[in-house]
Amino acid sequence: MRILGVDPGLTRCGVGVVDSAPGRRVTLVAAGVIRTPITAPIGHRLLGVDQGLAQWLVRYQPDAIAVERVFAQHNHHTVMGTAQAAGIAILAATKAKLPVALHTPSEVKAAVTGNGRADKAQVSAMVRRILGLDELPGPADTADALAIAITELWRPSAVSPHSGISDDDGATPAQQAWTQAEALAKQRRRQR
Amino acid sequence: MRILGVDPGLTRCGVGVVDSAPGRRVTLVAAGVIRTPITAPIGHRLLGVDQGLAQWLVRYQPDAIAVERVFAQHNHHTVMGTAQAAGIAILAATKAKLPVALHTPSEVKAAVTGNGRADKAQVSAMVRRILGLDELPGPADTADALAIAITELWRPSAVSPHSGISDDDGATPAQQAWTQAEALAKQRRRQR
Repeated sequence: MRILGVDPGLTRCGVGVVDSAPGRRVTLVAAGVIRTPITAPIGHRLLGVDQGLAQWLVRYQPDAIAVERVFAQHNHHTVMGTAQAAGIAILAATKAKLPVALHTPSEVKAAVTGNGRADKAQVSAMVRRILGLDELPGPADTADALAIAITELWRPSAVSPHSGISDDDGATPAQQAWTQAEALAKQRRRQR
Repeated sequence: MRILGVDPGLTRCGVGVVDSAPGRRVTLVAAGVIRTPITAPIGHRLLGVDQGLAQWLVRYQPDAIAVERVFAQHNHHTVMGTAQAAGIAILAATKAKLPVALHTPSEVKAAVTGNGRADKAQVSAMVRRILGLDELPGPADTADALAIAITELWRPSAVSPHSGISDDDGATPAQQAWTQAEALAKQRRRQR
């Protein structure tokens, strides 16, 4: 199973490809960033994202793509461009007849760290650990794209879309351990 | 000069094509709505909008397209889908090597009625009048799409993108008359 994760954006669109097989650990295939110049007209920027994603789809032949779900409440200045980049990614995958999954930032954080409010450094650290790497390739955006791809690989509904299993029930032992460690740390902070 | 106006949306994407020549009135070429089922996955909805727009581009061969600019502040529930539909339209036009213009709702209202805060009925009425029609074809969404197309036809920068002429300076006599009538009506309402 190979997943292309997309952290949508116009200035920097993070992309990451991960592989897994039953009983095997998740492995990094490739990760990078599609950039478009901030001064270019919106049409050329969307075309740049579209063409960049097309190259990733052709080169890495994923079985599915996962895109971060964008919310209107977030940063007003960039959210419309981010939504449009996400739309381009969803359309490109649909045209390629690939399944598309959307995950919220907190779903992604919860999946890779066990904590839906984890910070960027924690997500990066866990992505590195999950992939068994000393360092992540590329800038921070790639960590997010890889985290989205891992979330899709790991989610219970990837096996059965209507299993009704909640995120917690489907957590791996590593995730459960992390959740427990997090809860303990919180408790300690409260006790101080 | 032929413009395709797009009022972006996933459930209903309004499309309208208008023509004009120097010294001639603006004429209606076609107008309609691209619909996608609310229950379909987002990828299929975006594909439906993409394929629908492709048919309009091939059939009516516009010289440019104009799309309503979407803001994050508006209706949170639908704004992300609207932004994505707008992105699909902008990408489709760019792929077809057509110029793309974006107009805000208030720019469109000001262009066709002389009042940036005009209501839907007033916009519809003016679109009908501008196109010399007794009735508009199709539902209300088509009036908005036609208004966007007319805005693009009429805007001063359509002649020179850096003319520096403001909207008011570029108003047609009809628009100026409408603005004056509006101001007068407001004054009267205040005096009551």
